[in-house]
Amino acid sequence: MKRLNVGVIGLGRLGKVYARDLARTIAETRVVAVADTAAGVAESIAREHDVARWFTDPLELIRDREVEAVVIVTPTDTHSSLTVAALESGKPTFCEKPPAITLPQTFAMRDAAERTRVPLHMGFMRRFDPGYAAAKKKLESGAIGNAVVFKSSSRDPYPPSVEYANPKSSGGLILDMGIHDLDLARWFMGDVESVHAIGGTLAYPQLGAVGDIDNAIVTLRFTTGRLGVVDLSRNGIYGYDIRTELLGTRGTLQIGYLRETPVNVMTEQGVTHDTVPYFMERFERAYPAQLRDFAQNVLADQPMSVTIDDGIGALTVSLAATQSRETGRPVMLRDFAAAV
Amino acid sequence: MKRLNVGVIGLGRLGKVYARDLARTIAETRVVAVADTAAGVAESIAREHDVARWFTDPLELIRDREVEAVVIVTPTDTHSSLTVAALESGKPTFCEKPPAITLPQTFAMRDAAERTRVPLHMGFMRRFDPGYAAAKKKLESGAIGNAVVFKSSSRDPYPPSVEYANPKSSGGLILDMGIHDLDLARWFMGDVESVHAIGGTLAYPQLGAVGDIDNAIVTLRFTTGRLGVVDLSRNGIYGYDIRTELLGTRGTLQIGYLRETPVNVMTEQGVTHDTVPYFMERFERAYPAQLRDFAQNVLADQPMSVTIDDGIGALTVSLAATQSRETGRPVMLRDFAAAV
Amino acid sequence: MKRLNVGVIGLGRLGKVYARDLARTIAETRVVAVADTAAGVAESIAREHDVARWFTDPLELIRDREVEAVVIVTPTDTHSSLTVAALESGKPTFCEKPPAITLPQTFAMRDAAERTRVPLHMGFMRRFDPGYAAAKKKLESGAIGNAVVFKSSSRDPYPPSVEYANPKSSGGLILDMGIHDLDLARWFMGDVESVHAIGGTLAYPQLGAVGDIDNAIVTLRFTTGRLGVVDLSRNGIYGYDIRTELLGTRGTLQIGYLRETPVNVMTEQGVTHDTVPYFMERFERAYPAQLRDFAQNVLADQPMSVTIDDGIGALTVSLAATQSRETGRPVMLRDFAAAV
Amino acid sequence: MKRLNVGVIGLGRLGKVYARDLARTIAETRVVAVADTAAGVAESIAREHDVARWFTDPLELIRDREVEAVVIVTPTDTHSSLTVAALESGKPTFCEKPPAITLPQTFAMRDAAERTRVPLHMGFMRRFDPGYAAAKKKLESGAIGNAVVFKSSSRDPYPPSVEYANPKSSGGLILDMGIHDLDLARWFMGDVESVHAIGGTLAYPQLGAVGDIDNAIVTLRFTTGRLGVVDLSRNGIYGYDIRTELLGTRGTLQIGYLRETPVNVMTEQGVTHDTVPYFMERFERAYPAQLRDFAQNVLADQPMSVTIDDGIGALTVSLAATQSRETGRPVMLRDFAAAV
Repeated sequence: MKRLNVGVIGLGRLGKVYARDLARTIAETRVVAVADTAAGVAESIAREHDVARWFTDPLELIRDREVEAVVIVTPTDTHSSLTVAALESGKPTFCEKPPAITLPQTFAMRDAAERTRVPLHMGFMRRFDPGYAAAKKKLESGAIGNAVVFKSSSRDPYPPSVEYANPKSSGGLILDMGIHDLDLARWFMGDVESVHAIGGTLAYPQLGAVGDIDNAIVTLRFTTGRLGVVDLSRNGIYGYDIRTELLGTRGTLQIGYLRETPVNVMTEQGVTHDTVPYFMERFERAYPAQLRDFAQNVLADQPMSVTIDDGIGALTVSLAATQSRETGRPVMLRDFAAAV
Repeated sequence: MKRLNVGVIGLGRLGKVYARDLARTIAETRVVAVADTAAGVAESIAREHDVARWFTDPLELIRDREVEAVVIVTPTDTHSSLTVAALESGKPTFCEKPPAITLPQTFAMRDAAERTRVPLHMGFMRRFDPGYAAAKKKLESGAIGNAVVFKSSSRDPYPPSVEYANPKSSGGLILDMGIHDLDLARWFMGDVESVHAIGGTLAYPQLGAVGDIDNAIVTLRFTTGRLGVVDLSRNGIYGYDIRTELLGTRGTLQIGYLRETPVNVMTEQGVTHDTVPYFMERFERAYPAQLRDFAQNVLADQPMSVTIDDGIGALTVSLAATQSRETGRPVMLRDFAAAV
Repeated sequence: MKRLNVGVIGLGRLGKVYARDLARTIAETRVVAVADTAAGVAESIAREHDVARWFTDPLELIRDREVEAVVIVTPTDTHSSLTVAALESGKPTFCEKPPAITLPQTFAMRDAAERTRVPLHMGFMRRFDPGYAAAKKKLESGAIGNAVVFKSSSRDPYPPSVEYANPKSSGGLILDMGIHDLDLARWFMGDVESVHAIGGTLAYPQLGAVGDIDNAIVTLRFTTGRLGVVDLSRNGIYGYDIRTELLGTRGTLQIGYLRETPVNVMTEQGVTHDTVPYFMERFERAYPAQLRDFAQNVLADQPMSVTIDDGIGALTVSLAATQSRETGRPVMLRDFAAAV
Repeated sequence: MKRLNVGVIGLGRLGKVYARDLARTIAETRVVAVADTAAGVAESIAREHDVARWFTDPLELIRDREVEAVVIVTPTDTHSSLTVAALESGKPTFCEKPPAITLPQTFAMRDAAERTRVPLHMGFMRRFDPGYAAAKKKLESGAIGNAVVFKSSSRDPYPPSVEYANPKSSGGLILDMGIHDLDLARWFMGDVESVHAIGGTLAYPQLGAVGDIDNAIVTLRFTTGRLGVVDLSRNGIYGYDIRTELLGTRGTLQIGYLRETPVNVMTEQGVTHDTVPYFMERFERAYPAQLRDFAQNVLADQPMSVTIDDGIGALTVSLAATQSRETGRPVMLRDFAAAV
């Protein structure tokens, strides 16, 4: 079987999972090199998965002859430059979401992809979750007629660290958490015409101190006149809760679940079940599925399933919603894009 | 609108509910007399519902000219004699389950019903629960093909008093609790050929002291060769839990629910909802529905929906299962009936 | 037992249910008179419940000596004048929601209540649903800490008639459907500072022809800075679906259920259960509970649980949201109230 | 990292999964050899996972110097002889369930394990399912007090082939399907004192033609006097449904789930979700977890978690229940064991 020789850049929490999935779970790939700027990390992961090459300089990995494709899981502010470098070296590239937190950086990525004609896959993994994928098929099969309202909810079980949450690096709650829901909105419903958002720092004052919020509600009008709403919260408390609903003219689809083990504990206090701890557990299957899709398409010389245009689309809505939240006024996407 | 003038005998916990339902909820009935052997009880209930006549002697109520039909909700050991008296006075009679705890008493009831040709309705209220009624319709509509296995589970949230549980008056766990499930078994599946039961006093030693058990499992073979199982427990603890499953050749029906209010409480301890407290709440709609059915059939001169033969059938299976539990051996219903 | 002698005005679908509940289910009330402008309707209902007096002129009922309290279930545009007349005749009054579709009409009601000091109860029945009532208690017990986000969703199984939907009489989707959710929002969270709404006619073009919409999303900012969102749809299709969620600093409460009978049908097509058909079934217990609460408070000379101020509050938010939907701009409640 | 070099014997449906898990998913293992008596199968699997050695003779694999541990996933009638051979060659052995379909074969396995003192792990994978493992922990933590009743249900979505079902090779329904539930019964509750079983061929006459049944109900009395019941069915139809319930003196544990994707389809026909297709999907995590546990214990020189005594215990109950089903009489385990 022909396998794709992949290099993985960025070996943080998620990068480690990607390296393991690419080395083990995914039959179509082999990991031939890993890179991380932190000393010792790359070597340790390389040894764990019998990988021959490791680097602290990501550009060395990109240049490495054995590396046929590059997977980028680094901090967001490096996505653009590394992606451009990987594309310019002619290597199909997978870039973790979000593409960046400013539009100009994503335009540079799009330009590089267009100029080099090298494939670039954007890592919006929810599209590869069995639930969302099944819902997409149901929708396309006509099961609920025409979807007219999109609802999505994301809740974290606890707040991020103050360092992480700083909007200068994270882009703020709506971008950081909401870009997944806003990507789903576009995937299921098409382009967005206008957004309005409200939000506040209601549960964790420390987030307010660095300029972030912990709850937001974003309403969307699509160019077709259809409607959407996304609510985001850092105070899920009870667990990691991701739910989406598509309300159609002939029925409704609900996607989401909220238990980890199939166990009910039934006592005088009532019936209790556990919840999904966090995103790694909830999207355990989606992560390798997207990487596998990337590899299969590269090997088969097929177009990418998720592109930088998807990244730009979701980022634009996220930024416009963030602006609306700050100004209190609805934002027309057309005006917003023109002002960039 | 023509209404049926009813007399209610027995004003304990359930009798009070029946009196209220017959006086208020059910449009087809009026309560014209009530009786209870405890001094003052009948008068108090009569005043509450503007009923003109009250008695401490049930036979006086039965003889009362205004009473057109009799509803008997007295202790089980009086069911037979009161039912016979009511039938012999020519008054259509509703008798609460179980008909009795010995077969000869039920034979007397059947004989009276046959001799007088006066209608006699057995109070197996589960048949009138919206869930069980809907399941029966689904089954008859062919939704699951041919039902081949019957499963039913009944659990009480706490044990009965030692006085109540005494098998000499209650008939023991299998009869007292299980007769409902065994009636459903016969209603859904037909006649029983043989039974086997195991049981024990596992949670409440005080029940063992009076000769009762607190858990039992009864397996059934129907005359058609089909199978059934009923499990009974006094240690539901978490609530009142009644569930039935019909496993068919083309699908399965599940009947049962386990929450009182539609509220989920979601905290770091998980997701919790409440349970159904007890039988009054679970079968809140079934109780008046059966009385209404009785009244409607009497008024329309239609045959009773549930008859003394149903009572005898369920009682026979209950007694045979009790014997099997005591002897450790399966019991053929045919042999059991012959020995009575 | 002292009972309240009630007169019921308006015997449409809901009025018939109220008359039956007041005559039968609720122990604290008696129906002594009914009125409906349609010939024959009042007489027929009076006969059904043994009520001695019936009228086609509601004012005659209000003046009737036997009538101690008035229940108004007429078309919305008559609520204000009938309520004022009833209050001025000194009779405690229950008025079905919405109080009116314009604020001046509600001000007249408030003025009459203040002037006469006669009790006036606003019929927001959801507050009396066992689920919402339990959630309120849980919230007040501190089960989820401080509630910071309110989410509510209402869906009808099919669209109203074009005649009914005409915003000139119904007030439009946001007022007609949403006033319940907006009342809950105020009940659980307090006063609203600003609203924003989007909407459209996406499923039923005939509603657009008379100027109504069939889907809307309303976001709320409370005066405390907390957030809310309500989504409304006429194309529930699958059933009547009412859900509310309170997201707190220490947990979340969900209220809502979506099945009528406790039956699962499990076949090769999957596991299927039914849904709640419509509001009568969903709020079967809430309707009599609110009437009972009204009667108990009148009899005990207690203040009303739900007042015309609640009606004015919910109506104001509904109208402001409707304006926002039309103009595309957020509306500050203070500015909106000032402009009336 | 030290890895265990494993040889896999038997590359049918399940053997292929084991080979893949051992080669890829489980970090602690490497597959160094595979064997299957069918020509070409071993070579093909070897190439897929870069395995250097392949055999048609399992004994060659057992003798292979590179092979440090042996995993046996062959047809049941070969388990005993292959296990004995592997143990005698001094190699820790994992044997798929059931150990055999006759007790003498399992005694030979036990004797070999005792004689050689080489570790032997019995493949009862349900113990490694996250749900069952969590339930075991909950039970041991005292969450439900003392478990007094064990209930378990297993349903296949469709019948096995007539060849497979033949009791001469499969041992019949109770052994083939039920041994999992009966192992859980012993794991959660301890030793069994007596069993009683009923069964029949009710849905698939072709199974009756080869002497098998398609539905059975087994009741258990444990040596402690506690109770159990297992129901088995080949006509799950709607999906693969595995459920267990532990009824305790202070609460109840339920284990089981019945959906594959977290998607609800809500239309005028009601609310529908899918089901778990079959055992591979339901126990997707349990299969590698047990192999990993085996490898970890071998590497750490720890005792096996599941032993041949567990295999003998579950098989004995299965055979006794099968005899009870055939004779119609309860079977005492002591008498049964004595007769072997």
